[in-house]
Amino acid sequence: MQRFMNPTPDQWKDLTQRGSASYASLEPLAKEVFDDVAKNGDQALMNYTEKFDKVKLEDFSVSAEEIEVARSLVPEELKLAIQKAKENIYRFHIAQKTKEVKVETQIGVNCWQKKLPIEKVGLYIPGGSAPLFSTILMLAIPAQVAGCSEVVLCSPPNAYGKIPDVILYTANLCGVDKIFKVGGMQAIAGMTLGTVTLPKVDKLFGPGNQYVTVAKQLATQYQVSIDMPAGPSELMVVADASADEAFVASDLLSQAEHGPDSQVLLVTTDIKIIDQVDAEVEKQITTLERQDTARKALDNSKIIYFDSETEALAFTNFYGAEHLIVCLENENDFVNQIKHAGSVFIGNYTPESAGDYASGTNHTLPTNGYVRQYSGVNLDSFLKAITYQKITAQGLLDLGPVIEEMASAEGLQAHKNAVSIRLKKLSNE
Amino acid sequence: MQRFMNPTPDQWKDLTQRGSASYASLEPLAKEVFDDVAKNGDQALMNYTEKFDKVKLEDFSVSAEEIEVARSLVPEELKLAIQKAKENIYRFHIAQKTKEVKVETQIGVNCWQKKLPIEKVGLYIPGGSAPLFSTILMLAIPAQVAGCSEVVLCSPPNAYGKIPDVILYTANLCGVDKIFKVGGMQAIAGMTLGTVTLPKVDKLFGPGNQYVTVAKQLATQYQVSIDMPAGPSELMVVADASADEAFVASDLLSQAEHGPDSQVLLVTTDIKIIDQVDAEVEKQITTLERQDTARKALDNSKIIYFDSETEALAFTNFYGAEHLIVCLENENDFVNQIKHAGSVFIGNYTPESAGDYASGTNHTLPTNGYVRQYSGVNLDSFLKAITYQKITAQGLLDLGPVIEEMASAEGLQAHKNAVSIRLKKLSNE
Repeated sequence: MQRFMNPTPDQWKDLTQRGSASYASLEPLAKEVFDDVAKNGDQALMNYTEKFDKVKLEDFSVSAEEIEVARSLVPEELKLAIQKAKENIYRFHIAQKTKEVKVETQIGVNCWQKKLPIEKVGLYIPGGSAPLFSTILMLAIPAQVAGCSEVVLCSPPNAYGKIPDVILYTANLCGVDKIFKVGGMQAIAGMTLGTVTLPKVDKLFGPGNQYVTVAKQLATQYQVSIDMPAGPSELMVVADASADEAFVASDLLSQAEHGPDSQVLLVTTDIKIIDQVDAEVEKQITTLERQDTARKALDNSKIIYFDSETEALAFTNFYGAEHLIVCLENENDFVNQIKHAGSVFIGNYTPESAGDYASGTNHTLPTNGYVRQYSGVNLDSFLKAITYQKITAQGLLDLGPVIEEMASAEGLQAHKNAVSIRLKKLSNE
Repeated sequence: MQRFMNPTPDQWKDLTQRGSASYASLEPLAKEVFDDVAKNGDQALMNYTEKFDKVKLEDFSVSAEEIEVARSLVPEELKLAIQKAKENIYRFHIAQKTKEVKVETQIGVNCWQKKLPIEKVGLYIPGGSAPLFSTILMLAIPAQVAGCSEVVLCSPPNAYGKIPDVILYTANLCGVDKIFKVGGMQAIAGMTLGTVTLPKVDKLFGPGNQYVTVAKQLATQYQVSIDMPAGPSELMVVADASADEAFVASDLLSQAEHGPDSQVLLVTTDIKIIDQVDAEVEKQITTLERQDTARKALDNSKIIYFDSETEALAFTNFYGAEHLIVCLENENDFVNQIKHAGSVFIGNYTPESAGDYASGTNHTLPTNGYVRQYSGVNLDSFLKAITYQKITAQGLLDLGPVIEEMASAEGLQAHKNAVSIRLKKLSNE
């Protein structure tokens, strides 16, 4: 890992540069896929599956029978772990429910706000080397708590035309209504446009490679919204002498194994820990199956030393990490001054893995500096707020002249008339 | 207004078709403006102002002196109306504050969620025939309640190089930090990229014409988020015999005067009201200054009759109106079953104008069917949620094996190791 000692603020921008993948080149392909799916529906989906996933399917809906079989094949130990994680995630997300906001802003003017579920949501779960069932927990549980009436899941089939058992088991456990064996751009196009088999959804959630990311961006032009812009995963660890160097190294590696474009930063106010962490990384990395990937990520990773915790904090807020681990003597002061982060992990016994899987917080978080303006997925991601108002005759008599004055000043006479005509009637009564 | 009697659901899609403006043709221009502003900064902004707004400015920052002068020139009556509206809007938005969510999901596993302000927000207020100061109330008040640290406002100058007094007065009253005389695509590009004079913001809010809309869409590719996708304004009125036909007509006209592309729908279960409303519209429209605009909008407007309220409700939810006025005997039942709407106005004395200006609710609402997945602007639009967790040694001893099991099943060994290394240390202690 590269080392930087007390970099000055004018150097911070370069130090925190993220890989700026531009996917503009994939847009034409995405448009082609959307057009094809709009025109040929299910047949287009199955053609793409044959082309990209190398498997020909007669039917890409997952049957109740397949789910039953999957349930019987998932090891008991793993089922229990998933159920425990589900409990914690459920507890944390149901606690996010808010009450109806009801205010009589002045006598007779009653305003309220109510949150209602987004009806139809689509979850995308990537395929690839390992089944990412944890993401189903993170998306389907809040969807269920929110009360979404239709939760659809798409995931690409493997060469045998199957979706991994643990994906089917977890989806079924978390109330997913319909599961489809379709992946990539075509899955996003299908859920956006709807086909005979695949329902059209209102909002799309979930991670994916650059193809899926571009397709999700395109989907926003077709009356669908998405969870957030996607980018490579990031971890910043802020540590002082109170941190355990072996733990810090293990956290850095857990981020590095995600992919060669993972962002890993260690910020420290303790000069001694730098060599210690480096040595521990070297020691631990040799045991990893994904050692090559981790090494590539670490080549771009940085250790940044600051004399003062004030500078370290400023740098932390400047970067705005998706995941931020804080292992400091003085953790409370530091944490209370964090302005920009996706999810914060505090102390020596809070590895990022806990939040990735089972503590209860959501692991779908903004990357690439988007923590400045986006929240991670939470209960509200599956809800929308509607406002209501009811004004009594007395309320309108009191407030009406204010509205008339303002509408008139904006040159909107009919807006004013809608009040005047009512006030006139009331004054005649 | 066109009339439709008991249309069947297969006809609803056509009946509720919105004007589908595609702005793809304006994208190249927007890109050109962004590139120019990126390269030439303030000078580019002033060049565009000269070109489009026909005024050459030496300095496009509004000075404290200009604000002072504006304050002295706004009529006292209007000031009082604006202050009253501000009070109500403040009351309704501060009531939306939520408490920190704190849950011990299992012993020793503490998770919490805290909302923090988005630091820098940019408000765009269009120019044009009338000064839309009400939108400043709707955006700057929640920004202030949220605690945004920098609120920037851009609005185009008139031919004399001025922004209307009431805009300056309202912005200053609502805590806007900096006001700039710059409009159109160049204002959006400036707030997105930042120049020497104009601060770069994190999130953009506010309405605008098709140029501004396209520029806002483009801005999302430059680390900025936006309030919501924009489209022409809409009103649906649902009325039965309990409604006052003159009031209904005035509401329809208040929507119709917005622009020729405004959407106006009357849904009714009372056959007699159809002719009555039509007659009232004809009577009231003749007095309007914006009669021509209103007539164009009404040409595309529809009155839809249903025998049953159940059908009327289904149609209402199918459409998903930005503004929905409900004047029904049986209002509570109906309102409780509304699933999709931006803002709902209930009863004969609750005109849409009330919410547009002064009752307290926000008037920045999703259009074009986006009520299915978007909320109107509210306090949360200016906040982002961060999650935190702290796990005790005992907490990790209990939860650790669950994380290990799941990480292992996902093939993420380093994620597992981050837990194992801690559990090992704890078991050695």
